[in-house]
Amino acid sequence: MIAVLKAGTNDKQIENLSSWLRSQGLDVHISKGSDHTIIGLVGDTSKIDEDLLCGLEIVEAVKRISEPFKSANRKFHPDDSVIKVGNTSVGGLDFTIMAGPCSVESEDQVMEIAKAVKAAGATMLRGGAFKPRTSPYDFQGLKADGIELLLKAKSVTGLPVVTEIMNANHLPMFEDVDVIQVGARNMQNFELLKELGRTGKPVLLKRGLANTLKELLMSAEYIMAGGNGNVILCERGIRTFETYTRNTLDISAVPMLKELTHLPIIIDPSHATGVARLVKPMAMAAVAAGADGLMIEVHNDPAHALCDGPQSLTPDAFADVMKSVRRVLDAVKED
Amino acid sequence: MIAVLKAGTNDKQIENLSSWLRSQGLDVHISKGSDHTIIGLVGDTSKIDEDLLCGLEIVEAVKRISEPFKSANRKFHPDDSVIKVGNTSVGGLDFTIMAGPCSVESEDQVMEIAKAVKAAGATMLRGGAFKPRTSPYDFQGLKADGIELLLKAKSVTGLPVVTEIMNANHLPMFEDVDVIQVGARNMQNFELLKELGRTGKPVLLKRGLANTLKELLMSAEYIMAGGNGNVILCERGIRTFETYTRNTLDISAVPMLKELTHLPIIIDPSHATGVARLVKPMAMAAVAAGADGLMIEVHNDPAHALCDGPQSLTPDAFADVMKSVRRVLDAVKED
Amino acid sequence: MIAVLKAGTNDKQIENLSSWLRSQGLDVHISKGSDHTIIGLVGDTSKIDEDLLCGLEIVEAVKRISEPFKSANRKFHPDDSVIKVGNTSVGGLDFTIMAGPCSVESEDQVMEIAKAVKAAGATMLRGGAFKPRTSPYDFQGLKADGIELLLKAKSVTGLPVVTEIMNANHLPMFEDVDVIQVGARNMQNFELLKELGRTGKPVLLKRGLANTLKELLMSAEYIMAGGNGNVILCERGIRTFETYTRNTLDISAVPMLKELTHLPIIIDPSHATGVARLVKPMAMAAVAAGADGLMIEVHNDPAHALCDGPQSLTPDAFADVMKSVRRVLDAVKED
Amino acid sequence: MIAVLKAGTNDKQIENLSSWLRSQGLDVHISKGSDHTIIGLVGDTSKIDEDLLCGLEIVEAVKRISEPFKSANRKFHPDDSVIKVGNTSVGGLDFTIMAGPCSVESEDQVMEIAKAVKAAGATMLRGGAFKPRTSPYDFQGLKADGIELLLKAKSVTGLPVVTEIMNANHLPMFEDVDVIQVGARNMQNFELLKELGRTGKPVLLKRGLANTLKELLMSAEYIMAGGNGNVILCERGIRTFETYTRNTLDISAVPMLKELTHLPIIIDPSHATGVARLVKPMAMAAVAAGADGLMIEVHNDPAHALCDGPQSLTPDAFADVMKSVRRVLDAVKED
Repeated sequence: MIAVLKAGTNDKQIENLSSWLRSQGLDVHISKGSDHTIIGLVGDTSKIDEDLLCGLEIVEAVKRISEPFKSANRKFHPDDSVIKVGNTSVGGLDFTIMAGPCSVESEDQVMEIAKAVKAAGATMLRGGAFKPRTSPYDFQGLKADGIELLLKAKSVTGLPVVTEIMNANHLPMFEDVDVIQVGARNMQNFELLKELGRTGKPVLLKRGLANTLKELLMSAEYIMAGGNGNVILCERGIRTFETYTRNTLDISAVPMLKELTHLPIIIDPSHATGVARLVKPMAMAAVAAGADGLMIEVHNDPAHALCDGPQSLTPDAFADVMKSVRRVLDAVKED
Repeated sequence: MIAVLKAGTNDKQIENLSSWLRSQGLDVHISKGSDHTIIGLVGDTSKIDEDLLCGLEIVEAVKRISEPFKSANRKFHPDDSVIKVGNTSVGGLDFTIMAGPCSVESEDQVMEIAKAVKAAGATMLRGGAFKPRTSPYDFQGLKADGIELLLKAKSVTGLPVVTEIMNANHLPMFEDVDVIQVGARNMQNFELLKELGRTGKPVLLKRGLANTLKELLMSAEYIMAGGNGNVILCERGIRTFETYTRNTLDISAVPMLKELTHLPIIIDPSHATGVARLVKPMAMAAVAAGADGLMIEVHNDPAHALCDGPQSLTPDAFADVMKSVRRVLDAVKED
Repeated sequence: MIAVLKAGTNDKQIENLSSWLRSQGLDVHISKGSDHTIIGLVGDTSKIDEDLLCGLEIVEAVKRISEPFKSANRKFHPDDSVIKVGNTSVGGLDFTIMAGPCSVESEDQVMEIAKAVKAAGATMLRGGAFKPRTSPYDFQGLKADGIELLLKAKSVTGLPVVTEIMNANHLPMFEDVDVIQVGARNMQNFELLKELGRTGKPVLLKRGLANTLKELLMSAEYIMAGGNGNVILCERGIRTFETYTRNTLDISAVPMLKELTHLPIIIDPSHATGVARLVKPMAMAAVAAGADGLMIEVHNDPAHALCDGPQSLTPDAFADVMKSVRRVLDAVKED
Repeated sequence: MIAVLKAGTNDKQIENLSSWLRSQGLDVHISKGSDHTIIGLVGDTSKIDEDLLCGLEIVEAVKRISEPFKSANRKFHPDDSVIKVGNTSVGGLDFTIMAGPCSVESEDQVMEIAKAVKAAGATMLRGGAFKPRTSPYDFQGLKADGIELLLKAKSVTGLPVVTEIMNANHLPMFEDVDVIQVGARNMQNFELLKELGRTGKPVLLKRGLANTLKELLMSAEYIMAGGNGNVILCERGIRTFETYTRNTLDISAVPMLKELTHLPIIIDPSHATGVARLVKPMAMAAVAAGADGLMIEVHNDPAHALCDGPQSLTPDAFADVMKSVRRVLDAVKED
């Protein structure tokens, strides 16, 4: 980390700042230029609050050279993390397919879809029991009953279950859930992240609609700093000015995150585009870019879905997507 | 609300949809055009899930004519809401000045600032006890002790206190807090909003960094739907591509919200710009645009603040801002 | 197109509006609901100015059902357009690879790169002679001399040439250029688009940094309305809040545009990401999503490039990208 | 300007880079830290291409301390620029009111509006002769005839005229126009900016819909580098996710630009909000924030305007806005 001091900063001010920085456990290297003095910081600068430093009257500019995230940083953990989930795992050589309905509606619905997606090659069952809705008047999900139905489907199909949590107080209900999902709107719900850091459970952390990759990794850092390293990242589209698609799927997030972190990255083309017809090409693109897995919405009766509307595939369409995805996977493997 | 059906939709499909819509308590008006059939819905369409409707195979497009928010809607509540807060109130003819440090650091600090801002004309004391930080390694606030210090300052100055909540489980600590703040990152933490809806406490709801005014009002609706009408809206800057300012203060939100809702609107120029030098002109602009109040950061020693850095004013600078603000207030009153 | 009239609109106003709309050559269907009157417009509504209609005092809302672009619209031209370019063509079954340096610097440079990219499978040579730079003090390109060098390389390698135009007055210099590129910053330089519409030359139209796909297609419409149907669309990344990548490559633009238009779509992963290491995975992703081609920056000496900096590949790296791209192409072809 | 070199950079590489930088006329200060070498550049770094420097393999990061714009920079020109325009001037102590129709439609229309806005206190007449429209099928303006009508209105009212140019080849038609406007979509049409730099005419440069203030100032720099210092900046709203307003008026641009540059800043609340009802409060806010003037759309018959729709005021409404604006101006003057 480098701090450029304003012209005219005097030695006393420089010494005050340096001694404070040293007290934070950092090596301080001072080099006085013709008009600007530059302070170079060596050590664990992730503990330094960049805003604070910028805020000081004598500081002109601050430039981070090392990233502020540590546990999630590939620099300190070169090998890909592989997250064990029940009988399967996420990351490394495995390719993950999380499939299922946007919201759990009934036992028949979940059962039928679970069997269909397993037959087509899904490795995990996803389904919403608690639904984050912009309007308090929209359907909020079956809640505890929804989780029960997912677990029933798990007991029948053997597929591990992933479902979203919206409130740390609900954790007891998630006892038998295999992967706990944190939705885009809660990516910076730091209190929830801290609670999940105290559990050992795998967490699927979705990127916020207007958040940067650095912010996503800092949120992962919240979970990992609590002692839980089982974090799976998920890109689900970011908010842009485009209106033909609901959001814009940032596929470059895959290779960029692969460079920055050792955590696995899953792509959710269903929510990102909001258009069922786009799920197949975007799923293929995500695989070609090196994603560790996909999260795809499947519904047995899209026309009457309670909430997922146009972004959901029928089981047949999903099976067709799987075929194309496998072909791209093979092509990429040879790389 | 109007739904345009796809060309080729048959009578049976139209009847199925219409009967379902009627079952939602709506009047349904069908008009068949040359190629498109249009369904007009009259009644409380706020209960209709727009995504759901769009998702139906036979629906080409949906257009809302009335807004999806009800309790917050000025149409059904023409008069400005005035929120009682201790010995003062927010909205209507009163102008609110919430001032204080970004984070509470010590008794001396809070006391000194509280007295200074009161002397300069502040009507409420703001201060952070729980701090939402992007990094788990940044200062997280004094928590319960911070609230205690704020209440001490209240007992001495008589200024009502506003401070941020990050976890519904902390509500007991907020017993004596006058206004509970929901930060930008929690604007769509629906579980927290629901909990606050169950309390009678005034809530200061900050707009999210990339959220629309409609989304802000839907979040206010979450609180109001729970029975708590004491919601104060706050514009604190939205994320744009500009980098000279930390965020972009959307002052047009003031007159636009005044049209859409009866709830009071507060402007926070400190967080919006992140630059102390810009707080005065933006505070004046907010007043000229018709804001019901301001939230301003004041620090007795900006150069060594623990977290608020460059956006904070000294008590003297704050007093100067108050003078200019009053002049603009007088000019606007004559309108 | 549907216009919803405000409650309380009287018959005279409705008749005035209807007769004006009929005078625009549209069929007008009026249906009076309980409180809102709806006007349905059938015919070539692309000629109707939506803003104008919205602006009328009696109009509550306007909803387009058909798109405002006509010549570019797949509805009226179901088959893919195939643009002939010298001895090759863009669109349809052909896959296009435009490769070359960001800016033309010298004869040796262009010659060496042209031969290298041809050997690796490029079908067209790209290179900047006129450079749009944010700063008037940055290198502005070799201009006419740059075009001469590109044409020399063409005469030797036989590769058709694509290069950017910034001023319609320069058209004479582009006489022998095969494809004229319109850069992102000029996507809405309507005067330039009109001039290009008067030529028969193939135009590569790049999407603006903050423009929607509809705006891109309306700009294509400007060229086509002038009588030039040889338009090739190019997605080169849009501006978002992400900073690790220079822009965000919107790969979902490929399948979405394929639905909306018959024009070919090229992806430029070099400018989109600004990171050479990301060019390969994003090129593979673009192919998997169904792009008609790629535009890739190649430099024989990246470390000393005059302007393209970190986004440029060496000829060897480019050859490696081509290998992977071909594997994905084969996998996709089977679809 | 500071460049941080990658760890492991050897002396030869450092010397190569340093000598090249010295050849650009800069003083080079090298300071070797424990792992990173830092190069400080003193002199006119505006001539250094930041992307180029970042692109070099041995460079880890580049940080500008001085701004890349020179002629527009307040550092080198502390006093406010005052631009003479006919019998009036823009900037300094004068407050400018540019008012008139979005597009010129007829002699009666322009005359009537010109007289009305002058009576209400306008200091300049604005009107569109060449209209940038997203669709080639929308009304494109009266062109040369429109300019003639504006000049007729000028001869009668004495109001200087400001109107938009879209093509440098049209310059001869603008001979008698007082201020030439560059629209948001042409802010980075560098060829047009260069041409305007060769004229001595005052230029009103509008900020692009997704451009930063730095980019706006770099575009002003293009005009000034050509020898034309008569540049007036205009903030007209930026593209955000908000939909209730057409764009978001960035009023903080006023005090921020005042700090960065000596050029005058005009605010256009009409295009920014797209809502006539919001023009008054936003005009008042702009004045309170310290703007040098306003650009406001006025129409004698909004309901039948050919293009400006809902953002236009009647002459009476405009006169009312002027009254409020003057009150705020007086309040601000006392500051």
